[in-house]
Amino acid sequence: MTMDPEQIDQPIEVSDALYSAVESGDAIALQNLLEPLSLAEALREILQMDSAGRATVLSLISAELAAAIIEEAPHETGADLMETLEVLRAYEIMEELDSDIQADLIGDMQYEDAEAILQQMDAEDAADVRRLIDYDGDTAGGLMMAEVFVFSDTQTVGAVLRQLASDDNDVDRYRGQHPYVLNADSQPIGVVSLRGLLTSKRSDRLTEIMVQPITVPVTASLSELEDIFDKHPFLGVPVIEEDGKLVGVVSRAAVSQALLERSESETMKLQGVVGDELRSMPTWLRSKRRLAWLSANIVLNILAASVISAYEETLTAVIAIAIFLPMVSDMSGCSGNQAVGVSMRELSLGLVRPKDAARVWMKEITVGVINGIALGLLIGIVAWVWKGNPALGLVIGLALALNTMLAVSIGGVVPLLLKRLGQDPAAASGPLLTTVTDMAGFFFVLSLASLMMPWLI
Amino acid sequence: MTMDPEQIDQPIEVSDALYSAVESGDAIALQNLLEPLSLAEALREILQMDSAGRATVLSLISAELAAAIIEEAPHETGADLMETLEVLRAYEIMEELDSDIQADLIGDMQYEDAEAILQQMDAEDAADVRRLIDYDGDTAGGLMMAEVFVFSDTQTVGAVLRQLASDDNDVDRYRGQHPYVLNADSQPIGVVSLRGLLTSKRSDRLTEIMVQPITVPVTASLSELEDIFDKHPFLGVPVIEEDGKLVGVVSRAAVSQALLERSESETMKLQGVVGDELRSMPTWLRSKRRLAWLSANIVLNILAASVISAYEETLTAVIAIAIFLPMVSDMSGCSGNQAVGVSMRELSLGLVRPKDAARVWMKEITVGVINGIALGLLIGIVAWVWKGNPALGLVIGLALALNTMLAVSIGGVVPLLLKRLGQDPAAASGPLLTTVTDMAGFFFVLSLASLMMPWLI
Repeated sequence: MTMDPEQIDQPIEVSDALYSAVESGDAIALQNLLEPLSLAEALREILQMDSAGRATVLSLISAELAAAIIEEAPHETGADLMETLEVLRAYEIMEELDSDIQADLIGDMQYEDAEAILQQMDAEDAADVRRLIDYDGDTAGGLMMAEVFVFSDTQTVGAVLRQLASDDNDVDRYRGQHPYVLNADSQPIGVVSLRGLLTSKRSDRLTEIMVQPITVPVTASLSELEDIFDKHPFLGVPVIEEDGKLVGVVSRAAVSQALLERSESETMKLQGVVGDELRSMPTWLRSKRRLAWLSANIVLNILAASVISAYEETLTAVIAIAIFLPMVSDMSGCSGNQAVGVSMRELSLGLVRPKDAARVWMKEITVGVINGIALGLLIGIVAWVWKGNPALGLVIGLALALNTMLAVSIGGVVPLLLKRLGQDPAAASGPLLTTVTDMAGFFFVLSLASLMMPWLI
Repeated sequence: MTMDPEQIDQPIEVSDALYSAVESGDAIALQNLLEPLSLAEALREILQMDSAGRATVLSLISAELAAAIIEEAPHETGADLMETLEVLRAYEIMEELDSDIQADLIGDMQYEDAEAILQQMDAEDAADVRRLIDYDGDTAGGLMMAEVFVFSDTQTVGAVLRQLASDDNDVDRYRGQHPYVLNADSQPIGVVSLRGLLTSKRSDRLTEIMVQPITVPVTASLSELEDIFDKHPFLGVPVIEEDGKLVGVVSRAAVSQALLERSESETMKLQGVVGDELRSMPTWLRSKRRLAWLSANIVLNILAASVISAYEETLTAVIAIAIFLPMVSDMSGCSGNQAVGVSMRELSLGLVRPKDAARVWMKEITVGVINGIALGLLIGIVAWVWKGNPALGLVIGLALALNTMLAVSIGGVVPLLLKRLGQDPAAASGPLLTTVTDMAGFFFVLSLASLMMPWLI
């Protein structure tokens, strides 16, 4: 079976058929319509429905498909979808998911709904989920799944081979994990390779063929996990508590997914969207979240405007300056944002540390001087030619050159300083940069103009 | 061996020791200093050196570690590092990498250097790399590796078990791949599970226990591959040419990595950085790339400024308006960027398609109206109180409200339209949005002010 690219790029228009299947409550039609779609497409179709429609679809299709679609959604949206469902159905879907995904979803649900589902679950599974919720999202504890493929140090090669050969459903859940060997205190003391298993006798003890495993503490950060998976070909790493007990396994896939989500949420924050917004969310919530960020910005904007206000006399005398004020602040804002972008990327690649601020500044200022002079010359000439006044060209060009150097310096360094102060560089770099470049840009133009007043009028 | 988080978060200051080891050419010291670091840290240390220092380090440490560090770098930087090396050394390092990474690096190198390395390689491996370079980066062909774990349809279970149990180095390369069964035409007709192998007799034919594999064409896109790995637990998917011949395998890890790189490069582009900039690159190159993007912006800025220029009389009469012009354009620019952020995210999650523009606009305009009214009221009151003129408050508030609605509409829809036109939404959305919101913002403020002139002075 080969995936046909046409089919994925240009999906059949299913919406109408889907709506009538929802209305008639036709479970088989729903399953047949959604199954051939990509998970993203199926999710998109469902998110376009109202709450009742979403519940109908997710209740009637197979629990397996429903689980896959819900897993495809961002957690917050996935939790919302779960909450539209009857408890028993939500439980059925939950059972199809790994414990780390269960914990993500349940952690984002209303307390009452979450408890109702946990009550349905096997006591041990529910305890696992409650335990996983307590860990920070981007640590080994928050990313691990509780299902582990373990054997005791008294077991033999034969026991592992029997387990692998059995059609026990659980083996599916450990997919890709190597078998870990635990001592009597539940501490992982060994890991066994497939080659080891195939080249030993069935009666051999696991302790004879195992090697010491690399483990991580529950507190290990996403970057630490990334580095371990970069350095080693493992598909999973065992996670231990302070007492050395094995509590779960972080899979390579969970780490990749978390890195991708971090990168996407950084992009959103740099654009001024904090939180997990999708357009399928309620309007008032989207509106409120965006306003929260914008309101903080108002204060900064008023600060910048007060610089112009202080030079009203200069402006009245040479009104042409008003034309170039936004241009100078916008252009240097753009230059500064480029430096922010490079710093954010180097931070996420681990190529700079917060304490490298001085070195980064040195690197940026050289670019700033070159680009400042180039842009200042260009815009200076534009101003001169446009208004026929060389002094105006000098004022605008010089102001832009100076402000570009400043903007690039600040843009490169601000993310590192924010990180050092324990702040989120993605959310705060932009507004900080814009305010400073606006204020400084207005100041450079207007104070230079005041100095050059005799030649300007 | 537990990874100590302290060690990773606060690396020992190795730079000085590293520099003296480079000077004395002490290979063992270099290996011992770099090995305990994370790959990102090791890469950072190396990138801080000059070209000769980089070559010394990468020549003296083990080829395995050098390969891991080079793989950690973005491809373009990795290729630069390779080019600092002697051909024979570059070849040794290349041999440690999978063919997909080899192709990425060689594809980014100067033709002569690339050819010199290819000459050193085994003819078959070199042919593989030449073949891989020809495929588009973000397709199955560009992401696959040529190493495949295959057996013929005449072989038995015993043959696979023997191969798995052998300490043949190559098995390492197929890690995680299931064994594929090829027919006489090199077409993959089956895939064999571990459980199938363990529950069969050694003399059983593979054709008796295999199942039909899911395959993808070399042209399959990154999104299609993402969907297949979302839907199925496979660690790799076989890639076929038009004639059905197996030409490689795309691993789940390669797809995750490509998704992460796409997301990171989108963030950079939204910030106005096109290309793969790191601060370790030559200043003139960084400066030139950033200027290329900024220069295009100048034209757009002049367009916006010409709107102000058209209303110079109004400005002269009510100079206070100049104070609020940048505020109106900045604030609505921010609102529009939030909408761009959400659209970019929904595009990358596959939750909107280019043709959903009308639906997206409907969703955004409601948020735009609410936030436009809220922000317009706020800034209107600020303007009124600040300058003691209610008419000024009305002009500024109304202009901001209107411009916010416009900015949010445009911000939500522009990425989809650009995508539909085959343009890159990440690189072009920002400049387009800013120009329109600047022009419209200036126009709203100044034309409203012209209308209200009697009450403003």
